[in-house]
Formats: sequence, structure tokens, C-alpha cells
Amino acid sequence: MHHYTVGNVTTEYFTFAEDEPFCLESGASIGPVTLAYETYGQLNADRSNTILISHALSGSAHAAGFLDGDVEKVGWWDDCIGPGKAFDTNRFFVICSNVVGSCYGSTGPASVDATTGKPFGLSFPVVTVGDMVRAQEKLLDYLGIDRILCVAGGSMGGMQVLEWAAHHPARVRAAIPIATTAVHSPMLIAFSEVGRQAIYADPAWNHGAYYDKPNKPDAGLAVARMVGHITYLSEESMHLKFGRRLQGMEKYGYEFETEFEIESYLKYNGLKFTRRFDANSYLYVTKAMDYFDLTQPTGSLAATFADASHVKFLVVSFTSDWLYPSYHSKRLVSALTAAGADVTYLDVKSSWGMMHFCWRSIR
Amino acid sequence: MHHYTVGNVTTEYFTFAEDEPFCLESGASIGPVTLAYETYGQLNADRSNTILISHALSGSAHAAGFLDGDVEKVGWWDDCIGPGKAFDTNRFFVICSNVVGSCYGSTGPASVDATTGKPFGLSFPVVTVGDMVRAQEKLLDYLGIDRILCVAGGSMGGMQVLEWAAHHPARVRAAIPIATTAVHSPMLIAFSEVGRQAIYADPAWNHGAYYDKPNKPDAGLAVARMVGHITYLSEESMHLKFGRRLQGMEKYGYEFETEFEIESYLKYNGLKFTRRFDANSYLYVTKAMDYFDLTQPTGSLAATFADASHVKFLVVSFTSDWLYPSYHSKRLVSALTAAGADVTYLDVKSSWGMMHFCWRSIR
Repeated sequence: MHHYTVGNVTTEYFTFAEDEPFCLESGASIGPVTLAYETYGQLNADRSNTILISHALSGSAHAAGFLDGDVEKVGWWDDCIGPGKAFDTNRFFVICSNVVGSCYGSTGPASVDATTGKPFGLSFPVVTVGDMVRAQEKLLDYLGIDRILCVAGGSMGGMQVLEWAAHHPARVRAAIPIATTAVHSPMLIAFSEVGRQAIYADPAWNHGAYYDKPNKPDAGLAVARMVGHITYLSEESMHLKFGRRLQGMEKYGYEFETEFEIESYLKYNGLKFTRRFDANSYLYVTKAMDYFDLTQPTGSLAATFADASHVKFLVVSFTSDWLYPSYHSKRLVSALTAAGADVTYLDVKSSWGMMHFCWRSIR
Repeated sequence: MHHYTVGNVTTEYFTFAEDEPFCLESGASIGPVTLAYETYGQLNADRSNTILISHALSGSAHAAGFLDGDVEKVGWWDDCIGPGKAFDTNRFFVICSNVVGSCYGSTGPASVDATTGKPFGLSFPVVTVGDMVRAQEKLLDYLGIDRILCVAGGSMGGMQVLEWAAHHPARVRAAIPIATTAVHSPMLIAFSEVGRQAIYADPAWNHGAYYDKPNKPDAGLAVARMVGHITYLSEESMHLKFGRRLQGMEKYGYEFETEFEIESYLKYNGLKFTRRFDANSYLYVTKAMDYFDLTQPTGSLAATFADASHVKFLVVSFTSDWLYPSYHSKRLVSALTAAGADVTYLDVKSSWGMMHFCWRSIR
């Protein structure tokens, strides 16, 4: 018997746009679209206790509990979702859905295109954070939930939170954007692009058409993930966690095998990622983040949140997070306050950068 | 007639260890060893006016003037070296030599191994910053210079400066380490390793044996350089320099071609680098930096500089440099002060990160 856990869970699937295609921000359309999702806790009688959890770059719908009863497969935010936890499943009905474009059961570039019988690959249309959220809206419609009590998530999950509040405010009562930004910065675009370039550079990528080939672009995807992992740590946390310690040796080997623990950590995580994530999905999901800019089209972030004055916000940042530095959150707080919203801001003092938040591979 | 320039220059070559091999820190040895070098200005009668300039990761011996009379080939630190400039060639005799392991005329992995008649590739021994400096010492011996007035450089150049002061203090009167560290941090190792992994991941790398092949590991080297270029900019400088501006388009293209200016900048610099640098040299030079740790073997940085109390130091850092944050320099200043040296410290307020310093590809 596990205390404080939602216990065994299964992923469910919802398909829409079977007749009418789903129109995307780009002008393209797609259908049918499937979303993988999980729910924890019970929806109350007046359907007013829903908390929507949105995931980051590499996340899935599996946010809590043990998937299909496997105690090794713990949800990525199990620390916070469950009976008596921050998102208390004794009181709230918690939903998490995999974003469109990802590879954990939702429609994405690895899905089979019904018109050709083959995986989409690069013929999959580019999606945006706005598209991800509008797909989640279809899921809420299907589940009969008009309004959510709260939407919460970090990094790209936080972008979805802000997208909900900005463009679907009537359906949101409270929003918790964590370690995120309302405008993807040029530095973030730069890191995205280097990761994509590492994938493009892998001959096995083959312009996205590798699903029927013996080799996948694992080498490129691993490098992309290694770049990502550096950004999830702060310089200080690397000192604390690894220092200059060597891996399984007493002194320098003067060769190019793995020597420092930090190298071993990066290689391990790069390789591990290739076993669970699709390279094309990496391209699509990072691209969606790069397009994210809530200052547009007016140029004013406050104007974007003009209809969200009734939404209660809890904005959270981490002092050592250099990927989403606190000033991004402070700028957001100013805009939300200017828009008349009720905002609480928490700048968590931490040495651990994004890692503080993403301990269970939230990204 | 160009004012304030040293004018036309040519690279010269010095070869040593033709009889006795050059012993390396690793215990391996190599010979003969050639160093490419340039000199500007005149050595004075008592041979006391030498300034040694040390270069960074991707630098060469060509630090000032026009190489072989080509006005397009301006030295990498021409802004600071010349008549009337900071390193005034009217007064000083300035030397810059390409480090061993590099690919600009000094012996490195692309050089031909006399014993096999083929390029070394990965059979080239791993070199350290200490080895680079001891090779420069041979060059000074050859030029008849017992003591240098000053040694100056940034990033890996700064590591050489510190190596000179720590381990060859009798030959140094003043030292200017810029935007550098006495101990390569785990974050720096992490970025080095990701760059190396990008090269390893390129099938054309072929374990370093590509010199006689039609394709070189350009794709991997370009990704490595793109990672580097992100680190040379600060987040703020990317906002100032690029923002979220699109490259040659009015609105999002919703595809995977280059769209944002920052992407174009990175791709351009990655590609450009492959035309001038050798992938194996990238491996060797980054590895040399990773090994750099002047706290060893005693654990005390002050003890390492115990014999350098007569050396005058000017330590320079940049407030927005997140690759070599100012606290690295402050720690160094404390150690030098504890060792009894005369230290001036300058923490330059700058929004431009390392770029402030490396405008002419100093790295």
C-alpha cells in the first residue's frame, strides 16, 4: 500500500477532428487528432474542481502514479500530485494531456498519416503553443468541463498556462506559470536551434524520414539533449553536484574517453533520452516554443492579458535559473498587475537552476 | 598608408625537439615540434621589452597587421596591438605564437607524423595548457629572451597567462589574465564535452582519421561551434543584437528553415568555422582547457602562486560573462593577494558577455 500516491493509472486517448479538420495557427489543418491524457481524483458534482497540468518539452500525460501498475513508471510530477499533495487528488480532479506534436500517444510527426499510410515525418504541420492549448480545450469539451479551477506547469508547460490565461480567460479561474516566460528569448531560440542542428547533422535523420530505417538519428538527438541538460543546471549546481570529480579514475587519463563525472552525466542522459523520445518531435516541440511571444500582436503584454483580470496568478521563478531568469517572471508580473489581475509572485532562492523544479525530467 | 597598424606581417616557424623529444605532462613525448609565431615591433638592446600574447581556443599566431599583405586578413587582436595602441609596438616587442595542438601552423593532430608519413589524427598525444606554455618557453629561448615584460591573453589565453605566472614566474614581470579562470569549471567542461560529442557523432569524423577522405566532420564541428557561440554571448547581448527579429521575412514561416536572425547568426558562424579550423584540433584544445586546474596539486591557489609575489597582475573580467563569471576572477585576485603579488582588478561593466572581448574571434 503506497501512501500519498494516486496508485495505478492508465493513459487514455481522445480523438477529435475526425470530420472537420483542426485548424492550426499556421493556416494548415490536420485531422483526426488524438490526445493522450490521464486523470487523477474525481470530478465533483458541479464540475468545478479541475486542475489542468501542462507538461514541458519532453513530458508526457503520465504526471502521477504508477503507469499500468509498474512501480518503476512513476509520473513526472508525482511529488506534487496525489492525496494530500500540493495538487490534492482528494479534493481536485487533475488532468494532464500530452501535447500535439509530441510522441507519447498524441498525434505528432511519428504518427501515421491516414492519407498515405506512412508516418508524417516532416509533412506533419508545424504546431504552436496556441495549437497545443486549443487541442486541450477540445479535451475539456469532451470531458464536459467548462471552466478549470487552475492550470499549472513549468517551462513550456508554463507557456501553455499563460496561453490559457491570455486567450481562453473565460475558462480559467487560476493559473500557476512556473520557471517560464511570456516571450521566448533569443538565447532560448539559440539553444533550440543548436539542438535542431545537431539532429539535422545526423545522416540517419534523413530529412525526418527514418521511421522505416534500421537507424534513427540517436547520435544527433543525444547531442541535442546534452545541450539541454547543461541549460537545466546552474553553474553553481554543477559545482555542487559534480565539481571536477573524475569518473571511476584517480587521475587524468589524457585521452578522449569520459573522464569527468559531468561528462558521464551528460552522455548518460543524452543516450537515455534517445530511448524515449522521437527526434522529429524534438524539432516540432522546440519550434513551438520558439514561436511563443505573448507580446504579439499589440506589442503590449498587459494588453494580451486584458481579459484575464479575474484570473488569480501564482508566478514562480528560481533565482539560479539562467534559462528563464527571474526578470522574465518579473516582467510578466508587471504586465498582469497592469491588466488588473490578482498576482502572487514567488522568486525561489535556489542554487539548482531549473533542476530545482525539473528533478523528475519535467522537461 | 594605414595608421595605427603594424602593417604587413608574415608568420614564422620555429622547430624544436628534433633530437630530444619534448616531454608532455601526460608522460608522453613528441618531436620534432613546430610553433608558428609572429612578432611586431623591435626587441630593445637589453631584451627587456617583450610582450607575449597568448590566444584562445580558435586563435592563431596572427594577432596584428595584415597577413602576407592581405588587408582582409587582419590579426585577431589588431584593435589592441600596434603603434600607439594598448600593446604599443613603438615601445614593445610583441610575440604571439600558435599553441601546440592547434591547426594554424603549429604541430597538432593534422600534422604529418614523421614515423608513419601520415597525419597524426588521434595518435597525437593529449597536450595541456602547461605543455603549450613550455613550448612557448622554447620559442623565447630561441629568440634569446630570458624574461618577458608582460604576458597577456583572454579565455584560454588567460589560462596560459596564469600558467606562466604560476610555473615560470622568474621569466615574467607582469601578467594580464582576461575573462578567464584558474580552474576550469564543471560547466565549462560540460560545454567542451557537448562540442566534442557533436564531433564524435559525425560519421565523417571516423575516429579522427578523415584527412585523406573526401568529407570532413564539418557538420559536427559546426554544431560544436554553434554551442560555443551561444556561450560567448550574454542573454542580454542576444536581446540587444538580435531580439526576436526574423531573417529576411515579415512573419513566421512555420517550417524548419532559418527564420530568426539568431539562428542565421549561429549557422553562419558554425559553417564559417569549418572552413578555418580542424575538428581534431577542437578536441585537443578543449581537452587541454578541461584539464586546467591551478589549485592542484596542493589544493591552494595561493600556494600555486607562492613564487609569483614579484609579478604585477592586471586581472580583468566582464560583468555579463557567464562563461567566466567575475567570481572566478575575484577568487583569483584573493589568491594572488594572499601570495603577496601586486594585483589590480578590473570588473568591466558590460552587457556583451565574452563578446565584449572576443569581437575579432579571439576564441
